[in-house]
Amino acid sequence: MTDSFAAVPLRWVGPLLLSGNVVEGEQEVPLATYETTLWPSVRRGARISTLIEGGIRSTLVDERMTRSVYFELPHAGESLRVLREVEARIDELRAVVGQTSRFAELLGINSQIAGRLLFLRFEFRTGDAAGHNMVTLASDALMTHLLHTWPELRYGSISGNYCSDKKATAVNGILGRGKNVITEAIIPREVVERRLHTTPEKIAELNTRKNLVGSILAGSLRSGNAHYANMLLAFYLATGQDGANIVEGSQGLTQAEIVDGDLYFSCTLPNLIVGTVGNGKGLGFVEENLQRLGCRDDRPVGDNARRLAVLAAASVWCGELSLLGAQTNPGELMAAHLNFERNGTSA
Amino acid sequence: MTDSFAAVPLRWVGPLLLSGNVVEGEQEVPLATYETTLWPSVRRGARISTLIEGGIRSTLVDERMTRSVYFELPHAGESLRVLREVEARIDELRAVVGQTSRFAELLGINSQIAGRLLFLRFEFRTGDAAGHNMVTLASDALMTHLLHTWPELRYGSISGNYCSDKKATAVNGILGRGKNVITEAIIPREVVERRLHTTPEKIAELNTRKNLVGSILAGSLRSGNAHYANMLLAFYLATGQDGANIVEGSQGLTQAEIVDGDLYFSCTLPNLIVGTVGNGKGLGFVEENLQRLGCRDDRPVGDNARRLAVLAAASVWCGELSLLGAQTNPGELMAAHLNFERNGTSA
Amino acid sequence: MTDSFAAVPLRWVGPLLLSGNVVEGEQEVPLATYETTLWPSVRRGARISTLIEGGIRSTLVDERMTRSVYFELPHAGESLRVLREVEARIDELRAVVGQTSRFAELLGINSQIAGRLLFLRFEFRTGDAAGHNMVTLASDALMTHLLHTWPELRYGSISGNYCSDKKATAVNGILGRGKNVITEAIIPREVVERRLHTTPEKIAELNTRKNLVGSILAGSLRSGNAHYANMLLAFYLATGQDGANIVEGSQGLTQAEIVDGDLYFSCTLPNLIVGTVGNGKGLGFVEENLQRLGCRDDRPVGDNARRLAVLAAASVWCGELSLLGAQTNPGELMAAHLNFERNGTSA
Amino acid sequence: MTDSFAAVPLRWVGPLLLSGNVVEGEQEVPLATYETTLWPSVRRGARISTLIEGGIRSTLVDERMTRSVYFELPHAGESLRVLREVEARIDELRAVVGQTSRFAELLGINSQIAGRLLFLRFEFRTGDAAGHNMVTLASDALMTHLLHTWPELRYGSISGNYCSDKKATAVNGILGRGKNVITEAIIPREVVERRLHTTPEKIAELNTRKNLVGSILAGSLRSGNAHYANMLLAFYLATGQDGANIVEGSQGLTQAEIVDGDLYFSCTLPNLIVGTVGNGKGLGFVEENLQRLGCRDDRPVGDNARRLAVLAAASVWCGELSLLGAQTNPGELMAAHLNFERNGTSA
Repeated sequence: MTDSFAAVPLRWVGPLLLSGNVVEGEQEVPLATYETTLWPSVRRGARISTLIEGGIRSTLVDERMTRSVYFELPHAGESLRVLREVEARIDELRAVVGQTSRFAELLGINSQIAGRLLFLRFEFRTGDAAGHNMVTLASDALMTHLLHTWPELRYGSISGNYCSDKKATAVNGILGRGKNVITEAIIPREVVERRLHTTPEKIAELNTRKNLVGSILAGSLRSGNAHYANMLLAFYLATGQDGANIVEGSQGLTQAEIVDGDLYFSCTLPNLIVGTVGNGKGLGFVEENLQRLGCRDDRPVGDNARRLAVLAAASVWCGELSLLGAQTNPGELMAAHLNFERNGTSA
Repeated sequence: MTDSFAAVPLRWVGPLLLSGNVVEGEQEVPLATYETTLWPSVRRGARISTLIEGGIRSTLVDERMTRSVYFELPHAGESLRVLREVEARIDELRAVVGQTSRFAELLGINSQIAGRLLFLRFEFRTGDAAGHNMVTLASDALMTHLLHTWPELRYGSISGNYCSDKKATAVNGILGRGKNVITEAIIPREVVERRLHTTPEKIAELNTRKNLVGSILAGSLRSGNAHYANMLLAFYLATGQDGANIVEGSQGLTQAEIVDGDLYFSCTLPNLIVGTVGNGKGLGFVEENLQRLGCRDDRPVGDNARRLAVLAAASVWCGELSLLGAQTNPGELMAAHLNFERNGTSA
Repeated sequence: MTDSFAAVPLRWVGPLLLSGNVVEGEQEVPLATYETTLWPSVRRGARISTLIEGGIRSTLVDERMTRSVYFELPHAGESLRVLREVEARIDELRAVVGQTSRFAELLGINSQIAGRLLFLRFEFRTGDAAGHNMVTLASDALMTHLLHTWPELRYGSISGNYCSDKKATAVNGILGRGKNVITEAIIPREVVERRLHTTPEKIAELNTRKNLVGSILAGSLRSGNAHYANMLLAFYLATGQDGANIVEGSQGLTQAEIVDGDLYFSCTLPNLIVGTVGNGKGLGFVEENLQRLGCRDDRPVGDNARRLAVLAAASVWCGELSLLGAQTNPGELMAAHLNFERNGTSA
Repeated sequence: MTDSFAAVPLRWVGPLLLSGNVVEGEQEVPLATYETTLWPSVRRGARISTLIEGGIRSTLVDERMTRSVYFELPHAGESLRVLREVEARIDELRAVVGQTSRFAELLGINSQIAGRLLFLRFEFRTGDAAGHNMVTLASDALMTHLLHTWPELRYGSISGNYCSDKKATAVNGILGRGKNVITEAIIPREVVERRLHTTPEKIAELNTRKNLVGSILAGSLRSGNAHYANMLLAFYLATGQDGANIVEGSQGLTQAEIVDGDLYFSCTLPNLIVGTVGNGKGLGFVEENLQRLGCRDDRPVGDNARRLAVLAAASVWCGELSLLGAQTNPGELMAAHLNFERNGTSA
């Protein structure tokens, strides 16, 4: 058994321009990917962002990390009774969580009763960490506490898949998991025409027919976008994130509308699971990237991770806009691919 | 703008033992991940596979790569008429595809008519390539041909999201996209007890309650597993794959049943999108890994990619079994995590 | 244009035996359906319930009725600001709701921000009514109030499909809509063998493979059952309900497990939308049926509707058990159908 | 135990005007419902259809009825082998089906292999019947034949939920189940303004934001409409259909676009399960309704059922258009409800 290093080619694209509740100003972002045509594509979107007054506006709507456990009880009536009692003693549970970490904070409990199984979905704040381990540790302590306090509970599992980690589910978008970020801008018609060689109307129509109608036909689940997964994975790998969280991260929604002749374009990304501390963060290039992204600054707890989430979302915005622009033009997509792969330059 | 390399830590785990229609014998597999506790977990499953007569049995059920395009027509009646005509001339389309690549072969066409939009989903064989670019190039040629032959078609998009690439949808599992691989084995009770410190009954119960019931409660889509995404991403990164395809790859199903007192355990992975040629394959460590995996041997076209898919699926089997085993034991998961992260060894 | 009456054949099946937090004792239930083989099937399950000590145990976990509206705002940041302000003034909204009906009570607000759209999902208590009209009236008043109080809101729609009414969605099961009822029992092995001509093991295996695995393969959404829709529609029609609510009603989960050699069997029905007042209730036969069901008694507000929900859920339990029993036996299903249709008697 | 009749109030609405591949001309349709505000709503849409040149254009894209069975095998490799053999002998299976009914015809077989389970989904033509019983009978014969021919198969179930009957799944829309009908028209702007008191732009915007975006947020599955279930249930009850099939029937898609200043409006309904023979058809009022709908005429086998499906789809179009029109106007929905319920007239 040997150790070695797998290298994923990385390039900084940008600068992209941002305004909003966490990030302001210009910022280059790093993308690590084997699919190197992603770089010119995102870069094109980034350039457009610098031509918009105020750039890409970002809004961080929510943040929480979750873990669901489950127990067996004699019957559903017992589950309901215990559930109500547990909910009434949430302060006690908060104290249990507080002993597991300085940063973990119990925000609330969601539940499902299915037959004689009781699923509890704990929601936490996790500081600057994505929080996978922190919430597992906290949930482990909570389970122990619950099993002692309510002996009628029988251990089921520390993870009951109602969390839901790295699976295509609806629960995360509805109840929240990770950082919920929206990036949006109104792009002047002239910029759309000159930089994307298309029109606001064509992009809006494509978005409705492909990202909404086409996705619905495909039997999609809370997914209405072209390729969020591509930008997210590249950004996650470059910044030391657990890339497998693109599974839920990819479940987001692109909207494109005409506003006074210009193009309103937004990406709603409810499930960005990122952190600036934790696994993967000790690697040299990751540290360097986080510093260049301004995510190693001295800020209130959680703000560096929030900044990182917004930058991820902005990268998604750039790549999504660029691809939709290309797909409104017959042949452009293929030409761009071939050209870049042969010459290393984008159209 | 600078270039550099992002390094993802890699370790070979194994050996795992396989029998089936593409791979036989022992094989170590490489996993590149920041989540390094994945290594001992998969390795535990790999060890178990070597204790089973015949090891993990693999079956490659199907393979195809897809791209959907869409057109606008005056109304649905026209769409239906053109669709029937296109289907009747599939040989002509096959010839068009044949001119775009030595390896691309048109297998069939699926369709959806939605209002006045006609979605065509082309299915291809793509040799040893995952095939993203090959099918885009082929679809581009097909669209051009169709637009010339049926002037009533109006260009919609080269990708209509009915493909469906890197999004959580149902279409890929139902119509097929990528390689459909099943890995399965009957694990003697004694091995379950000694190596996983649990029982076949506990694992079967956990699988039903967590992977099936819990996933259904979470509003999952064709997903009934604990953490396929983790093993897939690590395997994909180590072998130069487009890791964003874990989105559809994660949509698979674990089954666990009792057979004569032993544990039947299977992973059904309908959407493994892997190749041994294409983007990412030129990197030195990727080349080395593919060679060590026996995927650079002189075999009939497609067999190296099939071998790779089976090895990916077997890695999933190992990691899935190991985690389910751990989750039947209160506290084991957390203890294993902490122990490994502190000491670099697994329990 | 003429008026007339469409007659749906009705039969009372039962008696079924219930214990739990709303209903106790024996009760016949009426089923109106054109699919008359449903009657002997449900009746078989009802007979079994009377052979179980305590009968079918019912638990009403939750109840609420919902309506979602949406607004347009300049951008997501504004949506978030307004949302936080609205949430802080919920008491004011409660007062607005209180003026629209004696029975409507605002329980809470769920939300989604998608780009510059703000979706608010109002949750209400609605007394003994299913509540469609009551919540629309209340939401209309709430919208008017919100539009006046926050002039930056632009009217979107009184219904934004995040409610979600009569559509296959995940939101209802996760956030709650209608009455969430679980019916369950442990059926002695001897009863399973004598009355269903099968074994607990066969039913548990069938349930896992068909209702869980098969449904997942089909790309189901929060649905793991054999035929809830059949019993629900028949019960709804017989009691004057809006039968179209079987769409969400059908999204429920059957569980079957072995407990000490006997069969644990439960139906989890999170979205039963029923009432004892409102549209359809003025018809003579409906009135009569509600009386016979004990749902016209003088009880605290809401208790008659709760009783109705539990009786619906118990009917589902009976029909579901009976069909699963039949499907474990090759040929029984078809024989039963043919026999009943020819002779009007069940096997 | 008593028999009686449950009466669902029925009214004929219309006339609606249709052109297309199965129905031409004017036709009133009957709707049986307790929700009587549905009548004026659908009638408004019907009136609009008569103001459009050519009326509502209908296209019947496909028809088939399905039943899935499943078997257990020693392992997936065996499943694959048997599957390939079964597919190669489909003519033999066609003959088996032909012996069960004059009208049943086997069109094809879809399959899924999950671990050691083999799911076969048989597709049939069923003449003028919806076909539930016909395909169960045929599948029963097929299973018997398969079990005799391949003794390695072990009986699983006559229904494996991959059919999928009356459950919210993706498989039916993707592979087909029931009649796939599209109804569409271009409504002159002037008609939209005068009859719906709104504009094409408002309806198109509402459709995108509510039916597409709102549904996606709700975690919907192949559902992008406002209330298909309402019209379908009323039409089904009035014509003797199995109303529980609105579960899959409700999974359809509304599209609204601007075409040269007018409104393109379509309803895509892939899963209409209707017949003119079978259960429920013997009732007097059903017979009368089918006659008035022109579905008792002497036509080639299947054409009466196709006509019925198109009329159902056209009713959906009328009700959907009318509600969307109402929801673009603040307050209209509630006013219309109250007015109708008090006075029995629509606005």
